[in-house]
Amino acid sequence: MTSENKNKSGVSRRGFLAGMGIGAGAGVLAGGGGVAAYSAETDSTGEDSSISFRDAHQAGIVTAQQEHLHIVAMDVLTEDRDELIDMLATWTTMAERMTQGLPAADESGESDYAVPTDSGEAQDLGAKNLTVTVGYGPSLFDDRFGLKNSKPAQLNPLPTFPSDQLKDELCDGDIVIQACADDPQVAVHAVRNLVRAGSGVVEVRWSQLGYGRASSTTTEQATPRNLFGFKDGTRNIHSSETEAVDDFVWSDEAGWMNGGSYLCARRIRMLLELWDRQNLGEQQATFARFRKSGAPLGTEDTDDQEFAEVPFDLIYGREPVIPEDSHVFLSHPENNGGARILRRAYNFIEGSDTFGHLSAGLFFIAFAGKPEETFIPIQMKLSRNDRMNEYVRYESKAIFACPPGLKEGQDWGTQLFG
Amino acid sequence: MTSENKNKSGVSRRGFLAGMGIGAGAGVLAGGGGVAAYSAETDSTGEDSSISFRDAHQAGIVTAQQEHLHIVAMDVLTEDRDELIDMLATWTTMAERMTQGLPAADESGESDYAVPTDSGEAQDLGAKNLTVTVGYGPSLFDDRFGLKNSKPAQLNPLPTFPSDQLKDELCDGDIVIQACADDPQVAVHAVRNLVRAGSGVVEVRWSQLGYGRASSTTTEQATPRNLFGFKDGTRNIHSSETEAVDDFVWSDEAGWMNGGSYLCARRIRMLLELWDRQNLGEQQATFARFRKSGAPLGTEDTDDQEFAEVPFDLIYGREPVIPEDSHVFLSHPENNGGARILRRAYNFIEGSDTFGHLSAGLFFIAFAGKPEETFIPIQMKLSRNDRMNEYVRYESKAIFACPPGLKEGQDWGTQLFG
Repeated sequence: MTSENKNKSGVSRRGFLAGMGIGAGAGVLAGGGGVAAYSAETDSTGEDSSISFRDAHQAGIVTAQQEHLHIVAMDVLTEDRDELIDMLATWTTMAERMTQGLPAADESGESDYAVPTDSGEAQDLGAKNLTVTVGYGPSLFDDRFGLKNSKPAQLNPLPTFPSDQLKDELCDGDIVIQACADDPQVAVHAVRNLVRAGSGVVEVRWSQLGYGRASSTTTEQATPRNLFGFKDGTRNIHSSETEAVDDFVWSDEAGWMNGGSYLCARRIRMLLELWDRQNLGEQQATFARFRKSGAPLGTEDTDDQEFAEVPFDLIYGREPVIPEDSHVFLSHPENNGGARILRRAYNFIEGSDTFGHLSAGLFFIAFAGKPEETFIPIQMKLSRNDRMNEYVRYESKAIFACPPGLKEGQDWGTQLFG
Repeated sequence: MTSENKNKSGVSRRGFLAGMGIGAGAGVLAGGGGVAAYSAETDSTGEDSSISFRDAHQAGIVTAQQEHLHIVAMDVLTEDRDELIDMLATWTTMAERMTQGLPAADESGESDYAVPTDSGEAQDLGAKNLTVTVGYGPSLFDDRFGLKNSKPAQLNPLPTFPSDQLKDELCDGDIVIQACADDPQVAVHAVRNLVRAGSGVVEVRWSQLGYGRASSTTTEQATPRNLFGFKDGTRNIHSSETEAVDDFVWSDEAGWMNGGSYLCARRIRMLLELWDRQNLGEQQATFARFRKSGAPLGTEDTDDQEFAEVPFDLIYGREPVIPEDSHVFLSHPENNGGARILRRAYNFIEGSDTFGHLSAGLFFIAFAGKPEETFIPIQMKLSRNDRMNEYVRYESKAIFACPPGLKEGQDWGTQLFG
């Protein structure tokens, strides 16, 4: 997966875009003439980096995971199919511009008497590897818009998982936008301006900020830690594993979903105060990994053992060293018919709840080409038996079909509605 | 203000700490022997940077503003003065360690049967310019701990500001900890571990994450934008303005507060959806600055005019170009007897509220040596007349006396209680 063109030259966005020539930008720079790119004045490194918007697959899936997430699920208000199609076309133009570090729309001719088309808070920040990924929920394929026959094969509402403690208002949605960037304000700006442009057509159902990358999608990224202090996603699919990516991430079904992926989301509240009172042995038994190195129990607690084989057969006394209710035991491919998922999780913290406890956790996002063979059965096992369930609350579930990447000249409206 | 020693050499924390020699760390590295610094494996730049904990003033006030904030206010539960003193001593040791990129306590001898002293999630992240700043609220100086006679002169509960819409549970507190760092997980880790160490002695009253720096405290930092899209804090005091820092930031009163500063906090919810419907002219009249450049109205809308004199006397037609209800008019030093405050504000976004609106705003922190002459009268004027009040809600108020920096061998307990 080398589908991304990065600009790490250290030149300004303005210089970068000029250097690209007109061709690459011409499709989106409406109005011509006075279009100025944001300059990344406040970028302390003097560098900016952007990710191609158009490709065989959408960006934001196998893309090297950015530091910040703002994801928003919306319900469609309008019953007018054309309004929806128009909005998706507008979103495409805006999203493509913003991923290039441009304002959401060309503002060069706007007067003081007009409401600005761009909210302005990302003006000096550059592209910051922004990706904008769109997906559609099962409910969009009801009777409203004539989409019934184009519903992807595995786009069904997620089942009820036994230990869930769902908040309905945080679940599901007709459309999702996942914005990821290396600056939180850039991700927020993208979501905010798409939501503004959808005013009257869609309304926000839920949204979630994630401030800390909690998985790695490339071998260059070290495995980050979750708020339990453990490395999270050691066995993640990395973009360089092209065969695994093809097998487990991209949908191979016929129709518009071919080359797309299912976004499966779970908001997992982590009961940090409870966790913080457990001894290290219990914490490590819950994951079946050493906290310090991430190495599986039964191996050496050293950094070079993080990716070691998990010794499922090792017995200590009369018990397996890898407990059968541990997170690793239940979710490991070896115990799931080889099934793997692409994790793209983010930590979140939202201040304190009414008990003074940190309102914090993991916003878990997985991308799967066949969720009914991978994500769903693994979640079901975890929900039934995971020792970690004592320390977490699954507060939401949602699934969305993310279409493949856009061809030149195509937009999200024409892609979905043909 | 050149009080900070930075390490930007690009070497690992381990190497850096070894290079410092034993002297600098000896006071805090309890237990000796197996102390290992966190290594900053996941720092994409390969650099880490730390800020001195001990100095004439506390770090985190005139320090170059870091990207992320986690601030927590606590109430004291215990009535035992010695428990409080002990906790403040423990906090000092932990805070000093964490600002060096070390775990909160030496874990080298801890067994699997012990609850880990450090929660572990910052293990690979380095110091990331972490500062930990402590302050004490007016309520701490009641009858409980014998502190009545050592209450600083201007440490009084903030007055009621006329347009406030306060949420009591977000106001005030006995003790505040402000943690700032260039990685959100590092700031969160610091607060979390201090709160853990204070279990039974204090309880959390409120806490707030700020994810985007919204002011600049050095001339090297460009003025960042708030969520209204405007540059915020153009007229801020910068650390290089030593005379202004002495006049307006540090307390010159007698006693333990000499060289300290008052932390004044306001949670300002910003009604983004309402703001986003105003035309550019109204938005600019509200601030009395151009959105694009930050230059005052009546000057040129170019970047080099951001710091231009504000033309208060300029008339256009029959109206002043700088409206008398604009934010700049009301808060400018020229209209406040020369009074200035040090701003250290952060943007916040916490997903969506029940209306689907972004729950977002500005967490405003000001440091003042004499808040009754600067922060309070300016806030009072703004609360009465600021055109911006239509677009914001002041949801909290709090004031804390932050003591000066710690001398070698001193801790926050001995500093406050003598």
